[in-house]
Amino acid sequence: MPEDRLPSRAEDFSEWYNQLVLRAELADYAPVRGCMVVRPYGWALWEAITRELDRRFKATGHVNAGFPLFIPQSFMEKEKEHVEGFSPELAVVTIGGGEKLEEPLAIRPTSETIIGHMYAKWVKSYRDLPILINLWNSVVRWEKRTKLFLRTTEFYWQEGHTAHATAKEAEEETLRMLEIYADFAENEAAVPVIRGRKSESEKFAGAVCTYGIEAMMGDGKALQAGTSHNLGQNFAKAFNIQYLDEQNNQQFAWTTSWGLSTRFIGAIIMVHGDDTGLILPPRLAPIQVIIVPIWRKEEEKAAVTEKALQLEKELQTEFRVRVDLREGLTPGFKFNDWEMRGVPVRIEIGPRDLAARSVMLARRDRPGREGKTAASWDGLSHSIGALLNEIQAALLARAKQFRDDHTQDPADYAGFRNAVETGFAVSGWCGDAACEEKVKQDTKATIRCIPFDSPGGKGHCIVCGKDASQKAVFGKAY
Amino acid sequence: MPEDRLPSRAEDFSEWYNQLVLRAELADYAPVRGCMVVRPYGWALWEAITRELDRRFKATGHVNAGFPLFIPQSFMEKEKEHVEGFSPELAVVTIGGGEKLEEPLAIRPTSETIIGHMYAKWVKSYRDLPILINLWNSVVRWEKRTKLFLRTTEFYWQEGHTAHATAKEAEEETLRMLEIYADFAENEAAVPVIRGRKSESEKFAGAVCTYGIEAMMGDGKALQAGTSHNLGQNFAKAFNIQYLDEQNNQQFAWTTSWGLSTRFIGAIIMVHGDDTGLILPPRLAPIQVIIVPIWRKEEEKAAVTEKALQLEKELQTEFRVRVDLREGLTPGFKFNDWEMRGVPVRIEIGPRDLAARSVMLARRDRPGREGKTAASWDGLSHSIGALLNEIQAALLARAKQFRDDHTQDPADYAGFRNAVETGFAVSGWCGDAACEEKVKQDTKATIRCIPFDSPGGKGHCIVCGKDASQKAVFGKAY
Repeated sequence: MPEDRLPSRAEDFSEWYNQLVLRAELADYAPVRGCMVVRPYGWALWEAITRELDRRFKATGHVNAGFPLFIPQSFMEKEKEHVEGFSPELAVVTIGGGEKLEEPLAIRPTSETIIGHMYAKWVKSYRDLPILINLWNSVVRWEKRTKLFLRTTEFYWQEGHTAHATAKEAEEETLRMLEIYADFAENEAAVPVIRGRKSESEKFAGAVCTYGIEAMMGDGKALQAGTSHNLGQNFAKAFNIQYLDEQNNQQFAWTTSWGLSTRFIGAIIMVHGDDTGLILPPRLAPIQVIIVPIWRKEEEKAAVTEKALQLEKELQTEFRVRVDLREGLTPGFKFNDWEMRGVPVRIEIGPRDLAARSVMLARRDRPGREGKTAASWDGLSHSIGALLNEIQAALLARAKQFRDDHTQDPADYAGFRNAVETGFAVSGWCGDAACEEKVKQDTKATIRCIPFDSPGGKGHCIVCGKDASQKAVFGKAY
Repeated sequence: MPEDRLPSRAEDFSEWYNQLVLRAELADYAPVRGCMVVRPYGWALWEAITRELDRRFKATGHVNAGFPLFIPQSFMEKEKEHVEGFSPELAVVTIGGGEKLEEPLAIRPTSETIIGHMYAKWVKSYRDLPILINLWNSVVRWEKRTKLFLRTTEFYWQEGHTAHATAKEAEEETLRMLEIYADFAENEAAVPVIRGRKSESEKFAGAVCTYGIEAMMGDGKALQAGTSHNLGQNFAKAFNIQYLDEQNNQQFAWTTSWGLSTRFIGAIIMVHGDDTGLILPPRLAPIQVIIVPIWRKEEEKAAVTEKALQLEKELQTEFRVRVDLREGLTPGFKFNDWEMRGVPVRIEIGPRDLAARSVMLARRDRPGREGKTAASWDGLSHSIGALLNEIQAALLARAKQFRDDHTQDPADYAGFRNAVETGFAVSGWCGDAACEEKVKQDTKATIRCIPFDSPGGKGHCIVCGKDASQKAVFGKAY
């Protein structure tokens, strides 16, 4: 770890983020432009995310599968809006085994097209529906400006792809998966999200309707943290996914897709982190508890180390715990190191604690003296469980409070322009794309979503003053 | 499932395999030449394999990470043998975001080069070693002749990459991982393997020494089921992975790599399967127990179904169990269907069983009457646990017996030529590549490995008659 200080969030939020990702060893820049190496600590966080999502997917009847990386370029062209949205971002293989390929292969930017091709082959009758498949993989989009986790040329994600017999079932599935994302975000990652519908200009290329969860980062900007698309019959018609219904009539299927990516790690960093480093939500933290043994005299070392190891052994049946026995580093250095890495609870144990049969517990989310409490060896596992739950709840509450404090319902367009400089504006919108575009030109803010839980009446369009058909959440986005 | 019969293994082993993979819905052909779609049932088997391997990797101190798909072509050229081995098989991206790339990017065929680049950046001192990283991903090798799971252009695998301070540690790691593969193969997959060293001509491009586990398939051919490479300082020197030792001297690190792929699914199919279909080892089977309710009269249906669902609920705390409630299919059809898919135990339950408070258990590995036993509802979970263990052990024993029956120590070259037609020949080898090459020309058999447990004395080279320096296992390989 470099000795020099992390920039503060207030002085340079973007640079605070970049340096923190590197210093906490979450990720590193790859030698290929725009690509990242996810380092073991970052990957362990991603594994925790995949574990919690995968559990929810399987509990709702989904199964995983593996689809190819390569997509024939002709496939991309079968759905008109899809190709317009994705073809500028494609990486294309033109050489294989030393020879020029007859048909170039796109590296998948998303798998709707090859999924459509295979589902058309597999689906014959209504008995074959629904198909509820999810893929854990990586995809490639040739991005101009990249930032670790938030926007990289290759990124890791899951993409769900389902096919249904009716429009109603497809819409239910689309909303079910959005709710799973929201539940995951709030209850595992302690990231409060706004559930809503995307405007036409922000929806997925080829979708009938896109829903998303939107989170506010520590600088007041928005991050789209997961999306769920009702694809209607667009891909079913482009790829001929047809089935015989119970009355023996050929019907096109109705499909959906939904995804959440390593971008979410960026959300966790930017929602919870402070000037000292990461703060990881206990439920997802790769290490929930770090034990730091403390001694001054050499003769104290053995007893303290032995007890630290014993505590690790006792606690590891319930928690992800590790003891820091690194030689040649001061306890203070270790405290800073694990604080930077966001470990939710630190256990300090020294000679005086041995005598008192207790330890000192330090909360990462409340630095300094107020976050410290002594805890007896008896019932320690219970104390730590309770503390981790308390931290998890406190992180969610703090993030909600921050979002509320940075969300306004401005009275006029001047107030609106101010509001989107520091957070969200929840304002009436007439539904006209021209007003949406004017906001973007004037402020760089966009409609993040039309929230399901619309606050108050619809009022008037914040831009043109006409009757608003809905309230929308406006903000600058990552 | 098509109505027509699977070809028998005796009449056409290769076609039996191809059709079984498709019919059991393990995988399907992708619309890109040489690529496969791993379907949910096949992916669930792969997930079971990854779960058991990942557990072993983590228990021995390894951590996972994510490395990019793209490798600059110049990287491939830094290690001389490596580039010779892999460049004919590369898929190359030449276009990104609509523009021709300045430097073409290879899709990783394996990640030693990009790992070397990053480790050189991360490693400074002996304190940074060892690095014990594993990756779960897919790689691409442009293969001419492909076969589902066994050889596909893109395949899924894990690749471990470690760096050490000493040659001794690297060698220990290489052998440790080989033993993990062997332990996994035998104790989870019930696939007996021969542990050994590869000859020079068969070793990994860029390795000092390659070790492998070799299994015999149901047609007597060999399948290399996992490999572990001691890379010496070859990649450390090519990529400049240097560290300061405790005496403050710059040293090159010693590296290893090791991999096991979806190919292993092919081994499971070909070692255990029979003319009726798959036989999956209980420890890896996605479904360990299938419950088929049986009734003739409509009024029997409710009670039988209710009990079947109750059994599923009771058993699912311990086993991966499912009840087949599909409408419009006969019990006989369902029996065949699940036998084809290799589910280890079938529970049949009908009106008579309700009266007797029992069920019929049918073992997949012993078709027909001799594999059936009645079991009481009381202690059913215990009975099933014992039966699954018995099946697991029986599969391993049967596969060992088959291998022994098809392994010979021929007296002369004529006998040797016969032996490799039906299985393995364990014969003396002088160590000369010319003798190895002659065997290949004459028989298409190759040296599968120099086994660690060499049977009997070394004797004479089976080809040239000179004193043998070792015994080698010869066989035709997939």
